[in-house]
Amino acid sequence: MIEAVSKLFAKEDKIEDLISVFKEMVEPTKKEKGYILYEMYQDKDNPSVLIVLEQWESKEDFDAHCSSEHFYRIVPQMLACMDKESEVNICHRVA
Amino acid sequence: MIEAVSKLFAKEDKIEDLISVFKEMVEPTKKEKGYILYEMYQDKDNPSVLIVLEQWESKEDFDAHCSSEHFYRIVPQMLACMDKESEVNICHRVA
Repeated sequence: MIEAVSKLFAKEDKIEDLISVFKEMVEPTKKEKGYILYEMYQDKDNPSVLIVLEQWESKEDFDAHCSSEHFYRIVPQMLACMDKESEVNICHRVA
Repeated sequence: MIEAVSKLFAKEDKIEDLISVFKEMVEPTKKEKGYILYEMYQDKDNPSVLIVLEQWESKEDFDAHCSSEHFYRIVPQMLACMDKESEVNICHRVA
């Protein structure tokens, strides 16, 4: 199982847009092979910081997700709402 | 429900120590009121980056955790294994 933790930085005036566009990713992602979890969280003190938590059964499943039709269609729209590059950590559980 | 996402930066020679000390936190934390999830993940490409994911039923439960006996006893030992300040995001789910 892998965990992807992505910290996204929204433009101040595009926070709600980024959340809405992300929501378009959820349904098609849930249908993908190896999908376990795909959620977005917003920092209470800094609403422009949005954290996406993903869990996939394997790195191959995650890579397939990152090459999916909806990924290529929707992620560019998410990028347009962002202020700077996201921080992405691909992790495995240790405790 | 709140989600705490903490990105820890271990000293290169203290990575395994930080993981071991964190593991001492897990059992007492699981017994606390409002505990939902308390896990540590390691970045596959950068093993000194460790991400702690926590879920608590309320902010009050999370705050009580941060004032618990085991928190005061163990967290300083974790801090001693760290290279720089952690990034902590206290979040709520938006998608």
